[in-house]
Amino acid sequence: MSSVFPARPVATLEQLSTPCLVLERGKLARNLVTMAATAALKGVRFRPHLKTAKSADIAHLAAPLPEGAITVSTLREAEYFAHHGWRDIFYAVGLGPGKLPRAAALARAGVDLAVTVDHVASARAIRECARVERVSFRALIEIDSGDRRGGLPPESAELILVAQELGPLFAGVATHGGFSYNERDAAGFARAAALEADALRIAAARLHAAGFPSAMLSLGSSPTAVAAANLAGITELRAGVYMFWDCYQAGIGACRYDDIALSVLAEVIGRPAHRPNEFLIDAGSFALSKDTATAALPPEQNAGYGFVCDLAGQLLPGLRVTRTWQEHGLVVSDRALAPDAFPVGSRVRILPNHACPTAAAHDRYFVVNGNRDVLAEWPRVNGW
Amino acid sequence: MSSVFPARPVATLEQLSTPCLVLERGKLARNLVTMAATAALKGVRFRPHLKTAKSADIAHLAAPLPEGAITVSTLREAEYFAHHGWRDIFYAVGLGPGKLPRAAALARAGVDLAVTVDHVASARAIRECARVERVSFRALIEIDSGDRRGGLPPESAELILVAQELGPLFAGVATHGGFSYNERDAAGFARAAALEADALRIAAARLHAAGFPSAMLSLGSSPTAVAAANLAGITELRAGVYMFWDCYQAGIGACRYDDIALSVLAEVIGRPAHRPNEFLIDAGSFALSKDTATAALPPEQNAGYGFVCDLAGQLLPGLRVTRTWQEHGLVVSDRALAPDAFPVGSRVRILPNHACPTAAAHDRYFVVNGNRDVLAEWPRVNGW
Repeated sequence: MSSVFPARPVATLEQLSTPCLVLERGKLARNLVTMAATAALKGVRFRPHLKTAKSADIAHLAAPLPEGAITVSTLREAEYFAHHGWRDIFYAVGLGPGKLPRAAALARAGVDLAVTVDHVASARAIRECARVERVSFRALIEIDSGDRRGGLPPESAELILVAQELGPLFAGVATHGGFSYNERDAAGFARAAALEADALRIAAARLHAAGFPSAMLSLGSSPTAVAAANLAGITELRAGVYMFWDCYQAGIGACRYDDIALSVLAEVIGRPAHRPNEFLIDAGSFALSKDTATAALPPEQNAGYGFVCDLAGQLLPGLRVTRTWQEHGLVVSDRALAPDAFPVGSRVRILPNHACPTAAAHDRYFVVNGNRDVLAEWPRVNGW
Repeated sequence: MSSVFPARPVATLEQLSTPCLVLERGKLARNLVTMAATAALKGVRFRPHLKTAKSADIAHLAAPLPEGAITVSTLREAEYFAHHGWRDIFYAVGLGPGKLPRAAALARAGVDLAVTVDHVASARAIRECARVERVSFRALIEIDSGDRRGGLPPESAELILVAQELGPLFAGVATHGGFSYNERDAAGFARAAALEADALRIAAARLHAAGFPSAMLSLGSSPTAVAAANLAGITELRAGVYMFWDCYQAGIGACRYDDIALSVLAEVIGRPAHRPNEFLIDAGSFALSKDTATAALPPEQNAGYGFVCDLAGQLLPGLRVTRTWQEHGLVVSDRALAPDAFPVGSRVRILPNHACPTAAAHDRYFVVNGNRDVLAEWPRVNGW
């Protein structure tokens, strides 16, 4: 660990160029341990989704090598994590034929790549690629458990046709209960988790009856992963945003605000005398993202583009980013601000509304642990 | 030009990894020429804003060296364009004290850096930095012409105090009529342009009377830049998104859909048999952005997350991206699709709702010119 966390801090939060990502190591570690323990108690393998973190430094903590199994959302992530030593990688987005050359290169390099398929044409292309390139994939058929994104309904006749097309590549079924984000409490998350598990069990039973036993039944979303659910027959659990959490997840009750490990460090660049309850920061829609998912929550949970913390990471009640432009964010306070509060040049930290797109705007994390000392810089892999 | 546009194409659109940015060179060139001519006819200097393009290859066309003057939205852009030879650079976001060391380094390296200030405290910090570091800046006082973002109202008493604090660094006034985005026709853009120009003239007259003559009166936004307006006394015009335009700008009438030079190349990765008017593409909220500004426009101009074109760039009426997840986009057609249309593995191009955040998700442009041959790759400079 000494190379990751040098004895002397590389900088303090006061010295960093803004805007940038600040990651609380202690909260990250607590979130990772809690979710790993949750999966262990449920008796399923845990396969963290790196779509949010996109960092080998974080993956080393979330899915330690050599046996760590991970989920990714892009082939660039798969290539990056393969380069850093991971071998058991699930690409959890429907694999289009255009991505097969890169997928085959990963398989040739020794990656045990699981891919997602929900269409006979994709299945045919994958099997043909495996034959021509003399590589193997584990192909999981995507099941739509209610999200209406990708996937086949569990009762779909096409399910068996896709498995037949995959032949020996068929390895099981996967689903993502993204509809859990519409729930607002533990009972709702449990209902969503039951829908996920039921859909996989129905699909796997039909496939088994047709001669295709599933080695993998993979499901998950952060709210359903923490929910009480009967996971009998399910082999693995996935989740991603739980590593950092965010204002949306806290707003729906999937975590506490104090669990949010990620923030955007910003400088106050405007303090208009004629608008006494407002100030401008140098984190706008590019640094925070345009995601306004919390607008669908009750007013007190509506973070706008993010709730505001002081430099130590303490939430400042009543302050939120209400408007953004490309490189400006407007912070508005519910109550009057003291004239000398938040002077130009002072710094705040913004808790993201939705951690995934906020993190994606940045190329690295500055890691702290409860104070202003920057312990490490962890790069991210963005793009495709 | 031979190094930028090699005689043989580096690839075709069918061969690129998706999602990625496709830039139509001919449309880009037409947009650049049209705006340059507009500024020339208005008798003002044009200072393109590189906040959207973030590319030296594009800046070479928009603001040719050696005399090209440019606007930037981040210091990283300023550093990148300085590295590529630009010397006359306006950083058009309020400069916080924390950015002064990097601004001073640019000035020391020979950049004639214009900076934005709207507060006595910032002005004091800038002047102190110039004194201690033995460098000079041109400081423009930001005027709020109606945007309620940064800037002082033109009649503000603080205006004179900021100029006094700047002393010899004071160089003029600047404003951005972002409120023009709320207008819907040429008359509205002209009204917004008049507000921009009037605010600058009022502020400059007051400053002049106090002993601070303005060398620069700088204004602009893409919709106001193309509007008919009296620019007497104004010295320069700025605009950025006009280089690419987008569905929002076309929707409000600032350009035509045929002018949109930027698109996102995507592969069809799902074609659910049970949802016959829909298909899934591998461009989601990360590749397209979460910006849904066109939702405020009439239904026929609501692009959702983008209108859909074929591989040749022809708009396909009635198709739009209505939902996005991180790496999935859902295209819905107004009318029934033929069962063999848009098969898995086929490709489409999505016109961005808002070009700036869409481009910011990508690290390069693939340049085409009316067909499928990729003529060049142009890198972008993202981040801060």
